[in-house]
Amino acid sequence: MQGVHRVSILGVGLLGGSLGLALRTLLSGVEITGYGHRRGPLEQALGRGAIDRIAGDLPEAANADLLILCTPVGVVEELLAALAPHLPDRAIVTDVGSTKASIVRAAGRLLRRPGRFVGSHPMAGSEKRGVEHACPDLFRGATAIVTPTAAADPDAVERVESLWRTLEMSLVRLAPEAHDRLVARVSHLPHALASALVRLQTNDSARLAGRGFADMTRIAGGDPRLWRDILIDNAPAVLASLEDLRAALDPLADALRRGDASAVERWLADAASRRRGCGDPRGGGD
Amino acid sequence: MQGVHRVSILGVGLLGGSLGLALRTLLSGVEITGYGHRRGPLEQALGRGAIDRIAGDLPEAANADLLILCTPVGVVEELLAALAPHLPDRAIVTDVGSTKASIVRAAGRLLRRPGRFVGSHPMAGSEKRGVEHACPDLFRGATAIVTPTAAADPDAVERVESLWRTLEMSLVRLAPEAHDRLVARVSHLPHALASALVRLQTNDSARLAGRGFADMTRIAGGDPRLWRDILIDNAPAVLASLEDLRAALDPLADALRRGDASAVERWLADAASRRRGCGDPRGGGD
Repeated sequence: MQGVHRVSILGVGLLGGSLGLALRTLLSGVEITGYGHRRGPLEQALGRGAIDRIAGDLPEAANADLLILCTPVGVVEELLAALAPHLPDRAIVTDVGSTKASIVRAAGRLLRRPGRFVGSHPMAGSEKRGVEHACPDLFRGATAIVTPTAAADPDAVERVESLWRTLEMSLVRLAPEAHDRLVARVSHLPHALASALVRLQTNDSARLAGRGFADMTRIAGGDPRLWRDILIDNAPAVLASLEDLRAALDPLADALRRGDASAVERWLADAASRRRGCGDPRGGGD
Repeated sequence: MQGVHRVSILGVGLLGGSLGLALRTLLSGVEITGYGHRRGPLEQALGRGAIDRIAGDLPEAANADLLILCTPVGVVEELLAALAPHLPDRAIVTDVGSTKASIVRAAGRLLRRPGRFVGSHPMAGSEKRGVEHACPDLFRGATAIVTPTAAADPDAVERVESLWRTLEMSLVRLAPEAHDRLVARVSHLPHALASALVRLQTNDSARLAGRGFADMTRIAGGDPRLWRDILIDNAPAVLASLEDLRAALDPLADALRRGDASAVERWLADAASRRRGCGDPRGGGD
């Protein structure tokens, strides 16, 4: 990435650690600084080679060409506020949060040069947590959504898109509100459903679970605090998706009540052909 | 399996073919006969070594110590009726259908010796179809449910349980009605939900799908006619599970509407700890 010599990763968990490992492999001549509240993960990230050095404080972490905020969604706003007074003019800032509208609004309000912020959401992750599960291939082949506003500096948009392209991700550009609406449907609702499916099992039914059930509910094992913040932040879109789900299930329930086998088959066949058509993504996902 | 020298597999698709391949590996001195309506899959099964010979007609297939019906749920009753006049007294009959109450009732009504029938449901499968995807490991480590009635001959129950034990499956014995109620919740509802999740995506949201969405919706690619018959046959229990799902989602929706972060976290944490506690099953699943 042209003009990027110092990268700071703020939050070295699964995503931040994986990002560091990948950049380390793919880029040369770039120094990666890690920052975080807890010493343990930072030292682990250093030991694994995900970062080159640990920033002693926030001003030191802020002194970079590119800052990538990899903290949970719930603390990004607080971190932006704390960073704001220390950011050099050249610094470009992005994040990896699963919601975008509130984070992009916060950046616009808090940063002295809001044009330097471009929100991102790499659709990669895992139900696992922590730098110990970081992996340089986590992002490859997956989709990265970037959500620049009209106020974003073109060179900042270009650098952030170049970051995800370097990681071999497919780029999609969306407005922050469109991102939140679409991701509610394709990621946040599925998470809620996986959790509901687990919650409604009894001991008697759970012991019968096969691979299909395991695959469907794996994401329900994700960090409850992380997902609490995501669902609360995107509550209106998640609630709308829950209504959409009811509407999608109603024709099936009606057909089952009527014993209408051909309506059931049509309902299933539409899903099956669409599912087979879309294939499986190559990269990680969340 | 003591006293079992001739096994007939009726229907050599994914399950029948996998069963043949596994039995071929695990048993010696047993001849496996395949039966089906279409010549192509039978010859493929023969070519792959999943069966030793092809039965020329139904009476020939009926002449066995153990018959395993591996056809779709929707045609099991018809097959039982056609088999009934040809079954020798020694023949034990089981099936692999995903619903049990109606099949067990049909066997009780149609067979001359209903005590020789013991329903089974190995919780193994795939969204793929056909003997070309058959695999001898499909069953290993997964759960096999057997649903003997009070009228079942003890030696028939023992032979059928021994079949699944030979395939290294975990056995669970249930009444047919209990099976249908529990499997609606842990398998049929998840299938309906996976299909609904696919159906409610737009082109814009589908292109953002990550690995989590792919895992959750994989089973929606399953055969619509096969699943039509399962859902129609088990409609009352599936409808009850859809109501249970609503009830499981309601507290989340309420908490999101109130912006009650700790209620959302508790709801998610309960699912996460239960999901992490149950682990992933070793075998295949449906």
